[in-house]
Amino acid sequence: MKIRILKNELNESIQHVAKAISSRTTIPILTGIKLEVNFQGMILTASDTDISIQAFIPTEDDKKTIVTVERPGSVVLPAKFFVEIIKKLPSQEIEMEVKEGFQTFIRSGATDIQMVGLDPEEFPVLPSVEEDQVVSIPGDLLRNMIKQTVFSISTHETTPILTGVLWNLNDNLFKFVATDRHRLASRIAPLEDADNIRFSNIVISGKTLNELSKIIPDQNTRVDIVVADNQVLFKIDRVLFYSRILDGTYPDTSKIIPTTYKTELVLDTKKLSESIDRAYLLSREEKTNIVRLQTLEDGTIEISSSSSELGKVTEQIDVVDFKGDPLRISFNSKYMLDVLKVVESEQLHISFNGPMSPIIVKPVDESRSLYLILPYRTTN
Amino acid sequence: MKIRILKNELNESIQHVAKAISSRTTIPILTGIKLEVNFQGMILTASDTDISIQAFIPTEDDKKTIVTVERPGSVVLPAKFFVEIIKKLPSQEIEMEVKEGFQTFIRSGATDIQMVGLDPEEFPVLPSVEEDQVVSIPGDLLRNMIKQTVFSISTHETTPILTGVLWNLNDNLFKFVATDRHRLASRIAPLEDADNIRFSNIVISGKTLNELSKIIPDQNTRVDIVVADNQVLFKIDRVLFYSRILDGTYPDTSKIIPTTYKTELVLDTKKLSESIDRAYLLSREEKTNIVRLQTLEDGTIEISSSSSELGKVTEQIDVVDFKGDPLRISFNSKYMLDVLKVVESEQLHISFNGPMSPIIVKPVDESRSLYLILPYRTTN
Repeated sequence: MKIRILKNELNESIQHVAKAISSRTTIPILTGIKLEVNFQGMILTASDTDISIQAFIPTEDDKKTIVTVERPGSVVLPAKFFVEIIKKLPSQEIEMEVKEGFQTFIRSGATDIQMVGLDPEEFPVLPSVEEDQVVSIPGDLLRNMIKQTVFSISTHETTPILTGVLWNLNDNLFKFVATDRHRLASRIAPLEDADNIRFSNIVISGKTLNELSKIIPDQNTRVDIVVADNQVLFKIDRVLFYSRILDGTYPDTSKIIPTTYKTELVLDTKKLSESIDRAYLLSREEKTNIVRLQTLEDGTIEISSSSSELGKVTEQIDVVDFKGDPLRISFNSKYMLDVLKVVESEQLHISFNGPMSPIIVKPVDESRSLYLILPYRTTN
Repeated sequence: MKIRILKNELNESIQHVAKAISSRTTIPILTGIKLEVNFQGMILTASDTDISIQAFIPTEDDKKTIVTVERPGSVVLPAKFFVEIIKKLPSQEIEMEVKEGFQTFIRSGATDIQMVGLDPEEFPVLPSVEEDQVVSIPGDLLRNMIKQTVFSISTHETTPILTGVLWNLNDNLFKFVATDRHRLASRIAPLEDADNIRFSNIVISGKTLNELSKIIPDQNTRVDIVVADNQVLFKIDRVLFYSRILDGTYPDTSKIIPTTYKTELVLDTKKLSESIDRAYLLSREEKTNIVRLQTLEDGTIEISSSSSELGKVTEQIDVVDFKGDPLRISFNSKYMLDVLKVVESEQLHISFNGPMSPIIVKPVDESRSLYLILPYRTTN
């Protein structure tokens, strides 16, 4: 392999694929990035077996030459050092040559680097994914759906299936669900052109989705999602992102969501968020995060928390609407703040069935999103 | 105590004094901030016994009422919660009242806070400092002198005196020295109006100086420094910053600085910095940080590092000037990068007396600053 390549383009692709590098891998070849050069351009690949990311750099883009290929070939280079050094090279022009024994020579300006490369034949082959079921979704919608659900996954490896987000697609409705048994987040979005596609019980690691989010560009991009037997492939511009589907059956959560409510409030999201944040500050010192919500006789609500050592915070909030029975309920304020952080609607419905039943939060503007928080069962 | 006070002004003073709060204190009263109100305004005090910070909020500033005092008094409030909650209060207007048993009531908008206060009589009295020796220095100069020396202090508590920066004032020259026995940083600045003031062997904790730096405002401020027996007091606007002087005698470092050199280079700071940074990336993987500098026959120099596992980085740099013997020397690249980060001069002198003697770095534009790095004694 012998090429000349532009620094910025190489660096951008390296940054993408490097997200698949795990610092804890025990397989030496997976601490590297595989480079493959042919006369179309360069393919970079990295993998930690759960995630694999591949980026393609064409020889030419918009009539600008990006890679000049003198001799095709391939090599695996140690990721950590390679990622850091390329972005710090002095010149836009980089020359790379792989010689005998995968010794790799990189030259840029007056900087010469010699790198110990590894045999690309040892690098695992990426799974082949049948492209039967392809769904196309706007990148910012996908990123939003991830953000609005992934915070509710479980972080305990004892229930691996709950460390993922459940995906279902049916009747053109794409649904994400995440729960850690104390709370649940669910978001549904209608998709165009997905008439004949349906899948269920596809569970994808929350950690993987967070990495995927970082790769989706800010500007208008579409992401193609290919669902296969045990893999999902995301196609984003010139990046392919492969993720394993988690094994196991996701619990049925449909039955825990009530259909009728005894108390229903409509509140201003920002006001509620700021009030709970202040109450949280005190509850945090008690290490419980418990905050109490209470309806008052004058039609307002009170948010409060107390600490035996520090004192008490009491907040009064006006409600936009209030229907049903008076209520006094305690809950984990951190869980509520997590929800309020990702809700984009200016107002929200909060609904209750007494102090021992789940709290349901629905943004007024996104009737298809739903957040559930189990209350804290207290005696007073 | 019963007052009304503006949120932003209270918050700003709290942020200043909170820098003296240690999270590891074992003295309960020192986890608090003392508030004292009289008809001139409010005094806030916090202390961790090494540092004490006091801030004053006048009742009026620029004809704007900041504090309205209904009843003077004082209380100590738990710092961590107080610091967080005040900045998050909903309204600019804050009412505070201390009732029986130091129970403190804070009201802002529809937020009510009740805080368990402590007896201000238990709070330690600040040291009284004789104002015989007062030095006035521009705030940005002081901040710069701290930044350009403090990185060289020792972090080992086994030699407590080296965890501080040595201050000397003589003949209107203010000198800072820091060393950890592997490297040394020294900076001298001329002061105006310090004719009759001299002091020596004043050693102030590096940690303290970092906290002090954060309090000095960016705009043109003068800092008055009062040196007393075992305390230094810094006066910055309405903030008083007290620091203990470290016990012990600082080692005499004057003899280790050579007066003649065998090899003298003048280099471009940015070019050298970028080259060493790339060589450092590789040397870091070897956990040694060792980089080699070598003069070449064509009058340039070469910076290099190598790792048995990863490979080799070789950099060639043009020199602005080169006098004396050829040289090959190894050193800790992290120490050199620390120096290059704080040097503001575009070019610098680097001088040597062979591979086993200290390396001396002097910025071309600041002839009074000097950095010393001991070489790494290697056999090849």
